[in-house]
Amino acid sequence: MMEVKSLLSERTQFMKASDIRELLKWVTEDVISLGGGMPDPSTFPKELADIARDVIATKGSSALQYGKTEGVDELKDELIRFMAKDGIKADRDEIIITTGSQEALDLVGRITIDAGNVVITERPTYLAALQAFKAYRPNIVGIDMDSEGMVMDKLEEAVKKSISDGRRIKFIYVIPTCQNPTGISMSIDRRKHLMELASKYDLLIVEDNPYSYFLFDGIYVPPLKSMDYENRVVYMSTFSKIIAPGIRVGWVVGNRELIRWIAMAKQAVDLHTSTLSQYIALEALRRGIIERNLPRIREVYKVKRDAMLDALAKYMPEQVTWTRPIGGMFVWASVNGVRTEDMLPVAVSKYKVAYVPGKSFYPAEDVHTSMRLNFTYPSVDMIYEGIRRLSNAIRDELKRSGN
Amino acid sequence: MMEVKSLLSERTQFMKASDIRELLKWVTEDVISLGGGMPDPSTFPKELADIARDVIATKGSSALQYGKTEGVDELKDELIRFMAKDGIKADRDEIIITTGSQEALDLVGRITIDAGNVVITERPTYLAALQAFKAYRPNIVGIDMDSEGMVMDKLEEAVKKSISDGRRIKFIYVIPTCQNPTGISMSIDRRKHLMELASKYDLLIVEDNPYSYFLFDGIYVPPLKSMDYENRVVYMSTFSKIIAPGIRVGWVVGNRELIRWIAMAKQAVDLHTSTLSQYIALEALRRGIIERNLPRIREVYKVKRDAMLDALAKYMPEQVTWTRPIGGMFVWASVNGVRTEDMLPVAVSKYKVAYVPGKSFYPAEDVHTSMRLNFTYPSVDMIYEGIRRLSNAIRDELKRSGN
Repeated sequence: MMEVKSLLSERTQFMKASDIRELLKWVTEDVISLGGGMPDPSTFPKELADIARDVIATKGSSALQYGKTEGVDELKDELIRFMAKDGIKADRDEIIITTGSQEALDLVGRITIDAGNVVITERPTYLAALQAFKAYRPNIVGIDMDSEGMVMDKLEEAVKKSISDGRRIKFIYVIPTCQNPTGISMSIDRRKHLMELASKYDLLIVEDNPYSYFLFDGIYVPPLKSMDYENRVVYMSTFSKIIAPGIRVGWVVGNRELIRWIAMAKQAVDLHTSTLSQYIALEALRRGIIERNLPRIREVYKVKRDAMLDALAKYMPEQVTWTRPIGGMFVWASVNGVRTEDMLPVAVSKYKVAYVPGKSFYPAEDVHTSMRLNFTYPSVDMIYEGIRRLSNAIRDELKRSGN
Repeated sequence: MMEVKSLLSERTQFMKASDIRELLKWVTEDVISLGGGMPDPSTFPKELADIARDVIATKGSSALQYGKTEGVDELKDELIRFMAKDGIKADRDEIIITTGSQEALDLVGRITIDAGNVVITERPTYLAALQAFKAYRPNIVGIDMDSEGMVMDKLEEAVKKSISDGRRIKFIYVIPTCQNPTGISMSIDRRKHLMELASKYDLLIVEDNPYSYFLFDGIYVPPLKSMDYENRVVYMSTFSKIIAPGIRVGWVVGNRELIRWIAMAKQAVDLHTSTLSQYIALEALRRGIIERNLPRIREVYKVKRDAMLDALAKYMPEQVTWTRPIGGMFVWASVNGVRTEDMLPVAVSKYKVAYVPGKSFYPAEDVHTSMRLNFTYPSVDMIYEGIRRLSNAIRDELKRSGN
């Protein structure tokens, strides 16, 4: 039996299992989990079974074979049409298909970040993005948000400071629409301001956009990529929430030279994304199944979001505040005087409810009073019951801490 | 438009597109390619279309949903049974499912290699393994092979030298059965010797075993992992050649602590491998389709290997030598006095035949006289015609260089 520690690379020492993953290990049947980030399986298109059979039966010699690292050309063509509705223009060689958005995050980090480089993010931000970037040891600078998204004065201040410190900023990572974890959407003015600052300081923006396909309130927010006149936005999205996460297909749009480097990196990482999955996505787009399915997904999730907001209003003590997202999958709740990571074991074991403590969404893990609540996976009944249980856990914790 | 170069990380400067990839760009319809590494699509099991439909229709809420980073438990259970026939024992937590073997190579490199560490390989070795490892900047030491595989005296010498140089050896990477690119299989004595040396010097072995399922001549070679009494072999294999490459499913077996680190790294890279692909592989194993399909694959490839060996004997000038593999996908040919990478453009454009120049399979790219020839993808007729064309290209080149 070998001593494993001595075999590990330095970068491995910096790895950390995500809190979500650890959390999932404790969750038993009787626990209501508001902690995941999973779509409702009832939204998976029924037609996928036939599509998968047809694709294999009629195009198996391509759909089951090795493929190009950049992805299947016909899928890119469908994506070009799909994204045009959001004002995003792209050629084939400005697109690469990835193994979910997670791989896109890793590859962007891999090709750009040297240890000590600055990466700017919203604060809080998506924890798996932090995980992906941190593997390459950047200095992550989080910028506070308000109800309109990242605060631009603070961003400019941070940019200036990085420059005066002689630190290279590699990119600004943002989820402008229904952000994970907060649910906040960046206002149009703020988006314009962000693009101006990026231009002024010659910065790359990485726009992660998994949620803009399900906005519930008729409010339109254009992606940054559609406002990208200087080609400085690397845009990423995924089929995880509009087809199904299990097929692991995402995509990246950006400067063709950057896409070429991403492809070169991807070749060494996994050769290419499942051709079968790509053909399934292609066929789902081609047959109009995604377009037809989206209104239904929106309706299902709108009801669930409304249920969660209603349950929060109904059950939570006054020390709790929360966001009111116009779409997406998450509500972000904060409780003055409670350390949510410390409350979690009690919430799970005694109150039978789970959530993701907010700490891991902060680059420096220095804020402890928040939690991310998912409304897409649990049923409406489970949402009410879950929030009721959570409110009791919070009351208990507030009492214990004397607040 | 941004200046992309300045955004790239240092590691990106070391990336290089594989020669195979570059090669494929030139290959037009009228070129016979012996350069790929693709299975014959006629070997893809016909049953996959129904399996895919059934899996989605009956298990869609799992098969299309997010899954555990380590992989689907039921697939691991089937793999445990599948590998037992080769004398490999494993528990669930000693297995991780990967996005093809390529991801396994990347993840092993990622968790172990610091810049300057030594990685030992056969010389030549699989070029995509070199690509994966090189991203982490090791010092790759290639060990010469003879007809029985890696030469053990040279291995021990290299190990001693690394130790006396104070360089940490992270692992020995080998493809013991029907090696890529040479087709050579390591003899049983050599395998035992390798295990002894690994034990003596306390070294980790990474065994890549995609080909042992199709041996054509009734010669049995046990995997190193089946002789691994000290748990120092990390074993990797793939469904790419026994189901289909397009589903991108491979797996790794090893020390559970190492598997845990690999899972942690994989989580940041792509969350998990396509659950749909995993369920398809699971069902193909469960229904006995792989077991039933293997004899057919062996028969198809044996005929093609025999055709290639026959064509080589028939057409090649005496300056050409080649290996006689007992299975796998490749024959390795060498021509004294010819630089195969220089010959390639002429071979493709004038003689309409493609191959992979041997150079890229050498860690130091310092041998120029070899080429890798694939016999699994082209038809028997194409093999004869391709080898005939190649022999003419070689004669032409020999004439030009005055040999």
